[in-house]
Amino acid sequence: MSARGLFLTFEGGDGSGKTTQSALLTEWLTQHERTVLHAREPGGTELGLEVREIVMHRRGFVAPRAEALLYAADRAQNVATVVRPALERGDIVIQDRYLDSSVAYQGAGRILSMAEVRELSLWATEGLLPDLTVLLDLDPAVGRTRLDASRTRYDRLEAEQLDFHTRVRDAYLELAAAEPERFLVLDATRPVDELQQSIRGRVSDLLD
Amino acid sequence: MSARGLFLTFEGGDGSGKTTQSALLTEWLTQHERTVLHAREPGGTELGLEVREIVMHRRGFVAPRAEALLYAADRAQNVATVVRPALERGDIVIQDRYLDSSVAYQGAGRILSMAEVRELSLWATEGLLPDLTVLLDLDPAVGRTRLDASRTRYDRLEAEQLDFHTRVRDAYLELAAAEPERFLVLDATRPVDELQQSIRGRVSDLLD
Repeated sequence: MSARGLFLTFEGGDGSGKTTQSALLTEWLTQHERTVLHAREPGGTELGLEVREIVMHRRGFVAPRAEALLYAADRAQNVATVVRPALERGDIVIQDRYLDSSVAYQGAGRILSMAEVRELSLWATEGLLPDLTVLLDLDPAVGRTRLDASRTRYDRLEAEQLDFHTRVRDAYLELAAAEPERFLVLDATRPVDELQQSIRGRVSDLLD
Repeated sequence: MSARGLFLTFEGGDGSGKTTQSALLTEWLTQHERTVLHAREPGGTELGLEVREIVMHRRGFVAPRAEALLYAADRAQNVATVVRPALERGDIVIQDRYLDSSVAYQGAGRILSMAEVRELSLWATEGLLPDLTVLLDLDPAVGRTRLDASRTRYDRLEAEQLDFHTRVRDAYLELAAAEPERFLVLDATRPVDELQQSIRGRVSDLLD
């Protein structure tokens, strides 16, 4: 494998297997003597932890644009001080959730448009897009069942949440369709090993 | 005077008299039975105070785009929760420093362009521009002397700072030239009373 740095991101709803797949990929890359850095947002930097504290733990109202700008600030700091330096050293950076999460989730919230959230994120990162984004596509009802196997029915609030998560899924698929070169879309109901083989195949191609 | 809300901002370097002039204007407007709200950035809201703490008091490196995004988040919160509600009530909002400060100071720092700082601020505020911006224009060397009357010479660092503040002044004048309808540019070396008369004249026109 060459020494070129790579930026790989995992996307998909909760319960789609991002953590499992990125851990398996890290294991394989490490066996092949590549240095892998796991980055995360929000809160992957000290400044990000402070921002995360504001967004997630304060009780008062946070205006939607203020929230989007705080997340973008966290991302700007993460990319400038963690991700870019690692890529410049030739490392492989793996991150669960990046720009596409912001676009899909904030866009699905229907207050901000997908286009403006994307533009904000690209400004924050000076246009840093992943070399590869693995989208683990899953029916949100299935994801929910995976996360909480004991539930079989949805109450009204949960049905609303399901509607939101269906919009997130649709947004993800729209993003993947717009950038087929960058995205690898996988059916997250397939067996863990099969999924990992597909991911490794694509990463191998990028490293060659 | 009518009941229409007005958004008035004061701009200019340190020592140019913004605080004095906005206090005198507030006094006059209050005498005319208008409700005046003094807004401020950074830190005019609870969320803003937390953001201000991060930007101003943390010791570690803050990436320039992260910093700009944090200031923009503070502004988004201030406009959404303080300024717009006051304007909708028909109040007069007076703020020392707003969008033009960000554009002039961050632009003068030469890492970000004036155009992108402006665009970020307009996104944060959903395009809220002041009805009137009073620019108290002053040679930065004079402003410095006003602030610290005991100093007569500049050392190397101070000379660099003076160069920065000269770029800020030039940026302000460029902004004013681009929007002559919005800006009232005044020579800040004129007597306090004369300046106040000019400002009241312009505000009267807006209120009529």
